[in-house]
Amino acid sequence: MIEQLQAILGTPNVLTGTDTAPWARDWTGKYLGAPAAVARPGSTEDVSAVMAAAHANGWRVTPVSGNTGLNGGAIAPGELILSLDRMRTVRDIRPAARVAEVEAGVVLADLHGAVAPHGLIFPMTFGAQGSARIGGMIATNAGGSNVLRYGSTRALVLGIEAVMADGRVMSLMSALHKDNTGLDLKNLMIGSEGALGIVTAATLKLFPKPQAYATATVAAASLEAALALLTRLQDASDGAVEAFEYMPGRYIERHVARVAGAREPFDTRHEVNLLVELGAVAPRDTAAGPDGRVPLSALLEEQLGAALEDGLVQDAVVASSEAQRRQMWERREASAEITFGPEPIVDTDISVPLDRVPDFMGLVQTRVLAFDPGARDLVVGHLGDGNLHYTVYPSDESLGPRIREIVDDTAVEFGGSFSAEHGIGLSKLGALRRLKDPVAQDAMRAIKAALDPKGILNPGKTIP
Amino acid sequence: MIEQLQAILGTPNVLTGTDTAPWARDWTGKYLGAPAAVARPGSTEDVSAVMAAAHANGWRVTPVSGNTGLNGGAIAPGELILSLDRMRTVRDIRPAARVAEVEAGVVLADLHGAVAPHGLIFPMTFGAQGSARIGGMIATNAGGSNVLRYGSTRALVLGIEAVMADGRVMSLMSALHKDNTGLDLKNLMIGSEGALGIVTAATLKLFPKPQAYATATVAAASLEAALALLTRLQDASDGAVEAFEYMPGRYIERHVARVAGAREPFDTRHEVNLLVELGAVAPRDTAAGPDGRVPLSALLEEQLGAALEDGLVQDAVVASSEAQRRQMWERREASAEITFGPEPIVDTDISVPLDRVPDFMGLVQTRVLAFDPGARDLVVGHLGDGNLHYTVYPSDESLGPRIREIVDDTAVEFGGSFSAEHGIGLSKLGALRRLKDPVAQDAMRAIKAALDPKGILNPGKTIP
Repeated sequence: MIEQLQAILGTPNVLTGTDTAPWARDWTGKYLGAPAAVARPGSTEDVSAVMAAAHANGWRVTPVSGNTGLNGGAIAPGELILSLDRMRTVRDIRPAARVAEVEAGVVLADLHGAVAPHGLIFPMTFGAQGSARIGGMIATNAGGSNVLRYGSTRALVLGIEAVMADGRVMSLMSALHKDNTGLDLKNLMIGSEGALGIVTAATLKLFPKPQAYATATVAAASLEAALALLTRLQDASDGAVEAFEYMPGRYIERHVARVAGAREPFDTRHEVNLLVELGAVAPRDTAAGPDGRVPLSALLEEQLGAALEDGLVQDAVVASSEAQRRQMWERREASAEITFGPEPIVDTDISVPLDRVPDFMGLVQTRVLAFDPGARDLVVGHLGDGNLHYTVYPSDESLGPRIREIVDDTAVEFGGSFSAEHGIGLSKLGALRRLKDPVAQDAMRAIKAALDPKGILNPGKTIP
Repeated sequence: MIEQLQAILGTPNVLTGTDTAPWARDWTGKYLGAPAAVARPGSTEDVSAVMAAAHANGWRVTPVSGNTGLNGGAIAPGELILSLDRMRTVRDIRPAARVAEVEAGVVLADLHGAVAPHGLIFPMTFGAQGSARIGGMIATNAGGSNVLRYGSTRALVLGIEAVMADGRVMSLMSALHKDNTGLDLKNLMIGSEGALGIVTAATLKLFPKPQAYATATVAAASLEAALALLTRLQDASDGAVEAFEYMPGRYIERHVARVAGAREPFDTRHEVNLLVELGAVAPRDTAAGPDGRVPLSALLEEQLGAALEDGLVQDAVVASSEAQRRQMWERREASAEITFGPEPIVDTDISVPLDRVPDFMGLVQTRVLAFDPGARDLVVGHLGDGNLHYTVYPSDESLGPRIREIVDDTAVEFGGSFSAEHGIGLSKLGALRRLKDPVAQDAMRAIKAALDPKGILNPGKTIP
């Protein structure tokens, strides 16, 4: 295998032994295992040639781009990893059409930088954006903090190019907003975690850069009050809410304790802290008036003032500078560092319908504590999407698997999901088997067998 | 077959002979052929039982809901049609979560009516909404006139329930905005035109009803000028443009000639007529000021005034009443009546990237006239989506097939699509074979074989 790969890619682009160390563990450190080799193709043609050889020889191939996933989906002990990290070309930016064509190895933050000079944004944003790459974002249908306004990855991808299991290239690089030419293979590939093919490039939607943001940290009276505030803000701003993030008191406590320079948002500790951000493009919202006030900020201040009077809100700080805004975001984006540590952990990624969030939170905490009275928990989440990362630190590691089941089962009981934005990988495969509609599981297996009959693409993950 | 169906559904729900007449032709009258029988199940269980029998006996089944499709996708000469028209229950409306759960046979306009008392809208709207049903909307991933703001069907469907080829029910009735639990079977079923399963119910997104609309008919100086106006309006209103529809001079001419009571929009005939609509929820846009002006209408008037001064616009009328607004919409929604008639016709449904629309239109008209100098053409379309229904009336019917190829090929040359919102059915199958990526065609066939191994679902359509 090594020699064939070297012949295809050149010797420097096939790593073995200790050179594979960066691919021998995932970001969380929970999934470990050195691959037999790491192939680093530089082009779609390279990927195609590697897959043709893999198909001919029955090599099992796990594609990786930024290796920032949290579910063990990119780990391949003793097998072949195909890393897309060399494919980092932004092929084209078309400002008039508001699209960018990028390769799968482009780092998310680099794409943000590349489109900024055009006055445009690619709105996907999350904590790992400095190392996460477009390929992984697409493979997991990543979410993040701006889904409320712009949608998850699927809503942002107009076209894809993918190498199939047999090495053939499927080009669906449309820049169209409407394209109904047969089965929706684009969305089938998005979120398939490398199990059906390897996405090598994509056409992405761009948006005009908001000319003003209004950002606040808010202490709400309760989760119910927070959700009422969200509806008020959405209706008052015509859907300009870009982020509505939830950090409970314990999150603030951990942040202050663990991150150098971190500060309390308020004089008093509150239980329901929100990061709220509105964004706007139109001059009526963004141009400062004769009194120097930006209408969007004034709108946020007025809404928060009214909510304070009505008892929905207990305290609030509106960012008065970009530095203050960044500080508010850094608190939220530190979540992975705050959450993951040496202690045993049950990290989850659940979602429930918005109107059921408060009841769900109450019940799941009760159930977890009834099972493990010594457990501690930590929540952070995209409240505006009903997507919560509810983490439990069990009193003993052996209790972890059952606690995970309790959380996942309770979410599904409330009409929710056990995987909102991180995907399946290895860690959610048990939940998928237990909780996903069995007819859907059969359909997934049938499609996998149809498109990857030898079962060589990211084997053992995603598909039950 | 008839007896078995009668045993499952009851005799009145199995139609034969002349009773099948409504299903023996499509809306255009282009596709004809009486089915052997029409089965009218009243529930998901009924559909399941019919499909289990069909699977056991190898009956070929074509599902139909409103029968308003334009591509012959719902015609089944001598075979079995499964009509969902009895399944017209709105199962649930949850205003707080802004979702509705509906059966596939619900008429689109009936759904509009059912959610209105809650101050909500289901934003899909098109000419056939008085008879089109949710099942067909989902099966074709229908578009319509509000895609610019709210997206096509895929963007509006949170969950589906479908009966698979073997009769098993796949329940993916999520009301979640984020749900990453394995392969995207929901989007695979949407737009699959009954070839992979029969959608029996769906969970749909609802939106707050705009409290104000600002609607205008505009004569733009050119297509380029129209697109520049669109960008201005989007940026000035922060994306509040709900419709941006194009009607050339010949469309106006045909409308006045064919529809009783139809009137010219302007004193002079213009070449690029637009129906423009903005909608808003927020009081800052919708609450009339002390001068009685609604800010949203004022914004539209100011933008149109500036565009008139800059030469982008030649004339414009802003609707000053709901009656005037309805009149503007009736002109646009009459397109099917205006387009289809006794003469030979090549109707198309193409899209191109927005920035290429003017060049595309110029070239395609040149090419069609070079091939058939006696041809006449007619355009109407969702300009804001780059989606044009470019219709050609050839001088002789025999020239039709080649003209269709010229139009489709030219669209694809411009990075466009030969099927933007109507789907494939029978009429686009040739274009699909000729123009769709061959690897994607193979993937479609493999998925079809995996999910419908006996090939009994809507055979001969959609899948190449």
